[in-house]
Amino acid sequence: MLLTSSRAISSRLAPYCPLLATTRSATHTQPKGHIASTATLPPSSFHTSIRLSKSTTTMSTGTPATDSKILSTNRLETDQFKWVSLRSIQWRDPTGRDRKWETAERPTRKGSAVDAVAILGLIARPSSREDPEVILVSQFRPPVMVAEEERKEAKEVKSKGLVIELPAGLVDEGEGPEQTAMRELKEETGYEVGNDGDGSGQTSKVLEVSRTMYSDPGCSMACMTLVCVRIDLASDDSPPPVAEPDEGEFVERRLVKLKGLYGELKRLQKEEGYEVDARLMHLAYGVGLREMFGLDGKGPGQGQRAKQ
Amino acid sequence: MLLTSSRAISSRLAPYCPLLATTRSATHTQPKGHIASTATLPPSSFHTSIRLSKSTTTMSTGTPATDSKILSTNRLETDQFKWVSLRSIQWRDPTGRDRKWETAERPTRKGSAVDAVAILGLIARPSSREDPEVILVSQFRPPVMVAEEERKEAKEVKSKGLVIELPAGLVDEGEGPEQTAMRELKEETGYEVGNDGDGSGQTSKVLEVSRTMYSDPGCSMACMTLVCVRIDLASDDSPPPVAEPDEGEFVERRLVKLKGLYGELKRLQKEEGYEVDARLMHLAYGVGLREMFGLDGKGPGQGQRAKQ
Repeated sequence: MLLTSSRAISSRLAPYCPLLATTRSATHTQPKGHIASTATLPPSSFHTSIRLSKSTTTMSTGTPATDSKILSTNRLETDQFKWVSLRSIQWRDPTGRDRKWETAERPTRKGSAVDAVAILGLIARPSSREDPEVILVSQFRPPVMVAEEERKEAKEVKSKGLVIELPAGLVDEGEGPEQTAMRELKEETGYEVGNDGDGSGQTSKVLEVSRTMYSDPGCSMACMTLVCVRIDLASDDSPPPVAEPDEGEFVERRLVKLKGLYGELKRLQKEEGYEVDARLMHLAYGVGLREMFGLDGKGPGQGQRAKQ
Repeated sequence: MLLTSSRAISSRLAPYCPLLATTRSATHTQPKGHIASTATLPPSSFHTSIRLSKSTTTMSTGTPATDSKILSTNRLETDQFKWVSLRSIQWRDPTGRDRKWETAERPTRKGSAVDAVAILGLIARPSSREDPEVILVSQFRPPVMVAEEERKEAKEVKSKGLVIELPAGLVDEGEGPEQTAMRELKEETGYEVGNDGDGSGQTSKVLEVSRTMYSDPGCSMACMTLVCVRIDLASDDSPPPVAEPDEGEFVERRLVKLKGLYGELKRLQKEEGYEVDARLMHLAYGVGLREMFGLDGKGPGQGQRAKQ
């Protein structure tokens, strides 16, 4: 099956990894944590733009956005895939009947108990210690771009293939979840935990490392750990750190007030055509649930139904 | 690759679907929304047990738990899979370089804009309107059982393959997300929205139908919609409805106080060996974030690090 799109999109692009490609000209691109050491892209021309709005600070890191596009998609044989695979599971149900279940999986796990780690990073400023910002990233996700094209939702929103997520990455061999989290947070956003490198008096703390959880257990064996960190800035206007993206990594950093997270994500979906990671959106639902649905005694819910 | 496990597990089992099996004796089992009409299991012997604890009401529906186990797993060719597939995507990055990305996808979407719908169902009783319960389900997920075996975490918790999730299911042909949500909620938990079938005076409301969100966009094209509903019971002790599971569907319903959701999920992970869907766990993090991490001025976070 082939899908060809000439739609050019303006985007920040995903981390990449050069890899033996199955098409002659293609360079393999896949999530972080498996960045090969032989990066072949020219060094990123660093570019920083800071936009301040009521509840969001956006900062681009790495190469500025230019046009990207989907060229085609193919279904290949299972053994031609390296980063994702399929498994057929035979199991016996409680009545003694033998059954079959199909699942996707990440075949890239190397001795780790989990595939990936996401970081819930909270930035607290002195004047608003109880009203922190959440560190988010947005990046181009080819599967989402393809899905958007096929969903033909382009009428509703401009299809960009850009997804807002918590910073995250695959666990490298020999890493613990907390190590992965710190590495990815620094690479993708510049923020560090347990290191006051700029001498500003910033303090930080890992609040929690979750147990393993399953991202989409009806469909996939992929599992993850959530690492929560809190970073207290020394002053309200401490300059944001410079991200340290790998070569070829194009991530946009975004700070959003935790209390306004749900509304901001909805606005980004509706007005700016971003997609949102389901785990992040569920977190935002949880944060906003009490106010949204009148659970704090402030009246009935004011939720709006999105057009599908 | 073969994995053979003789570990017998006590479980509620997942919904099933008879399907052309690739092994002679296996019956294909996959998520709801694609239940074939020619169910071949004997009718479930309905069984109801209600357990009350401080913050959780658990009710089993359908066939009681008996031993289930994983028999083996196989990697097959792509075209032998029906419920999940792989796609190789060629795309062009902002520097003009052609790249490749691998992704899993659900090939079962039939004209719908989304693959699946989850339901955030809140049950409010008259004496605690501002302190509702969340409707959860737990079910056996073969991929999770296999992952647990391979992660060798059996030392830490008894590997059961049981996952606690929001009620959810795949969108049937011709359905809108809200329809899917109502169908799945009733089938899996018995609760209905917009229907006071028992004449008790129960009122209900769909609070919100989300836009599409992506469950694991670095790994998969699978997307979902979250439908939030609120059900106000007529009396504090309104009896729970009887679920209407499809034949062969084995789901355990569980009501947990929204405010205590995070703690209860952690307890179920740690003490009872359940796994938790990442989206549900992120929602629980969101709900508990302010108290958990001292964001309401009540002191520093009391988060504990889980052993990995």
